[in-house]
Amino acid sequence: MLDYLSCSKEVLLKEKANLEATYKDYVSQHLKLDMSRGKPAGSQLDLNNDILNTLETYITEDGTDARNYGVLDGIPEAKKLFSDLLGISEKNIIIGGNSSLNLMYDQFVRLMLFGTQGQAPWCQLEKAKFLCPSPGYDRHFAICEDLGIEMITVPMNEDGPDMDYVEQLVREDASIKGIWCVPLYSNPQGICYSDEVVDRLASMKTAAKDFRIFWDNAYGVHHIYEEHKLKDIFQATKEAGNEDRVYYFFSTSKITFPGAGVALMASSLSNIAEIKKHMTVQTIGHDKLNQLRTVNYFKTADGVKAHMKKLADELRPKFDVVLNTLDKELSGSGLLTWTKPNGGYFVAVDTLDGCAKETVALAKEAGVVLTGAGATYPYKNDPRDCNIRIAPTYPTIEELTTAIELFCVCVKLAGVNSLLEDKLDEERAM
Amino acid sequence: MLDYLSCSKEVLLKEKANLEATYKDYVSQHLKLDMSRGKPAGSQLDLNNDILNTLETYITEDGTDARNYGVLDGIPEAKKLFSDLLGISEKNIIIGGNSSLNLMYDQFVRLMLFGTQGQAPWCQLEKAKFLCPSPGYDRHFAICEDLGIEMITVPMNEDGPDMDYVEQLVREDASIKGIWCVPLYSNPQGICYSDEVVDRLASMKTAAKDFRIFWDNAYGVHHIYEEHKLKDIFQATKEAGNEDRVYYFFSTSKITFPGAGVALMASSLSNIAEIKKHMTVQTIGHDKLNQLRTVNYFKTADGVKAHMKKLADELRPKFDVVLNTLDKELSGSGLLTWTKPNGGYFVAVDTLDGCAKETVALAKEAGVVLTGAGATYPYKNDPRDCNIRIAPTYPTIEELTTAIELFCVCVKLAGVNSLLEDKLDEERAM
Repeated sequence: MLDYLSCSKEVLLKEKANLEATYKDYVSQHLKLDMSRGKPAGSQLDLNNDILNTLETYITEDGTDARNYGVLDGIPEAKKLFSDLLGISEKNIIIGGNSSLNLMYDQFVRLMLFGTQGQAPWCQLEKAKFLCPSPGYDRHFAICEDLGIEMITVPMNEDGPDMDYVEQLVREDASIKGIWCVPLYSNPQGICYSDEVVDRLASMKTAAKDFRIFWDNAYGVHHIYEEHKLKDIFQATKEAGNEDRVYYFFSTSKITFPGAGVALMASSLSNIAEIKKHMTVQTIGHDKLNQLRTVNYFKTADGVKAHMKKLADELRPKFDVVLNTLDKELSGSGLLTWTKPNGGYFVAVDTLDGCAKETVALAKEAGVVLTGAGATYPYKNDPRDCNIRIAPTYPTIEELTTAIELFCVCVKLAGVNSLLEDKLDEERAM
Repeated sequence: MLDYLSCSKEVLLKEKANLEATYKDYVSQHLKLDMSRGKPAGSQLDLNNDILNTLETYITEDGTDARNYGVLDGIPEAKKLFSDLLGISEKNIIIGGNSSLNLMYDQFVRLMLFGTQGQAPWCQLEKAKFLCPSPGYDRHFAICEDLGIEMITVPMNEDGPDMDYVEQLVREDASIKGIWCVPLYSNPQGICYSDEVVDRLASMKTAAKDFRIFWDNAYGVHHIYEEHKLKDIFQATKEAGNEDRVYYFFSTSKITFPGAGVALMASSLSNIAEIKKHMTVQTIGHDKLNQLRTVNYFKTADGVKAHMKKLADELRPKFDVVLNTLDKELSGSGLLTWTKPNGGYFVAVDTLDGCAKETVALAKEAGVVLTGAGATYPYKNDPRDCNIRIAPTYPTIEELTTAIELFCVCVKLAGVNSLLEDKLDEERAM
């Protein structure tokens, strides 16, 4: 493998010519491939089609007619299923509609308008800030931006957010009201929070009495290679006397159907009571028939786990293609570093500084859509312009193979261009 | 029929003894009947069960996989169905989740947090007020109460809200930000807004630039006896140059399944753009499979209308029982007045002043649950304590017959008690 960082100008120029020729070939193929969003492929969704025919009854186990109005926080059997799956007591769970993002947004809205546990509504504060471990999930950051909450970028380490930095910030600044977390197979890096990180998040001193962790366990059962055991955040906060600190989110969007799954949130009893007080004004209840479908389809938590093994078998070859191609094309090149996730939906890469936008633009011109460069940072601003999220799940293996090979060409081309510019700058400076 | 108002004390005392004996008989039957909420009966829901098996495909007519993420504002065929049914252009419609109440609440939240058309967010105002034609829908009023919006009670006339009063209020007070309307077969009186009322609402001068009509057309196709043609509010506001004034809401909750229907909102293009800007942060999209189910089940707007005829046939006998029994038992009694709705879900009655709470309490003690007295007024405060909402849809005909007969006994008993107290007061004053 050519180590581009130690190449002479001449070698880089020759390589640039080669890469441009290869790139031109790709452009002439008029590709139309999408690696931009964490969407399951049609073939993956086909594995779940039986859920549409599992509505054996519309009467719940406690005799409720699921077709009719009522049951604000979810039918008992759905609560039980997710309680068993996630190790959270049923009484701490609210089952929502089809979108955990919607539950997160609505929880932010409640904090904005009503505050929590007697603290002032956030919309009345001069400033409310939120910690955003980055790279992170663009839709999380969009909620803060929409609501006018100032985002503070927190670096990610290999075992979660940089806790030294987090602890220092939250101890000193009462306007910092919380932190976004995707604790398992994080979006986009696939990082798993260590026990120590979970404990520190749960127990750290915060200047804000109403500091809140938005614990988006979106990939809680989405193991692809090895299974990481995530420490129980509720147990940790309970031990630390901070039971009200966590709002936990989960959904079956990437288990059954993204458009028609079942979402839930979980929190302390005191928080749940507070949420229901407002939720009961907002809606009479969510779709109970879809909750029943989900329960009838999986039967038990073990049913979900068995299903996730099937999905992992479907996804693993795709992650293999991405990781193997990156390894083959760019390992030792000095142009790219990347994470090797054990689960989740993404692979995150770092190009040379200042090369992410160009790489994404080159791929786009050749017909391969990636998540916009910068999207993984608050305000879409990646200060080093280096992070790119790769979503391997939607294309077929064949499409993905082409797309990722092209991607490697784009990484190299952008990298070589950048290195050549550096050389030029050096020459000018001499 | 005994005219209770002109009875002597002696006759009333005798009648009271008779009524108490009858009432005691009912109590001894240990009834357990519910006329409290506008819920369809199981037998009515059975008429819709086929919708659960109508998902012939999960690919929409524009080729979207409805199982997957995407399509924020509804699949094209769902928009078309409701566009045809309601006479609203598809581009003015956003299809939501399973609850129009949720769409209303979320719209209020957006007004609170972001304001509209450049006006200040309502949460930043010293005071925001809302007009509440009453008797009205308790869940509308609960939204205002939850969000701290001051409610102003507006009397209802036979053709809609008292528009002289409304026009005067909104012309003078810029803190009045809008009005709740159920324009067709209103909840609870079954009143239909006249063309003149619609025109005056659409064209009236408002001190608030961001005055908004929440047009909850919940019973827009729920004709039971004669069909009332509601004037097109969008046409009226357009003609008056007030296109942004209306948020329109509708759902299939009382067409298919209350727990698993499809809700929508409609508004001006400018408002729709504003809403989508925030909604796209709140969710990736609502349940498209359920939208497809609904479209496949009805096929066309005419399909919905034909279905509503079946539902009307199911509901008419229930309304007949209520109206005929009231007529037989209380017409000319002087103790009760009531509306004769042509559609919708309710019959509203007015007892003698100060008798509603006692009537509801008597019924409850005998095992018949009615909507709480006062619930049809802001802050649950019926100033005359006379209005009671009867919801005849949920019980069977047999249950309903018993329940409404008992109800008449309770009305009489409370009425006689009240008249006897008046006599006592008169005697004391002599």
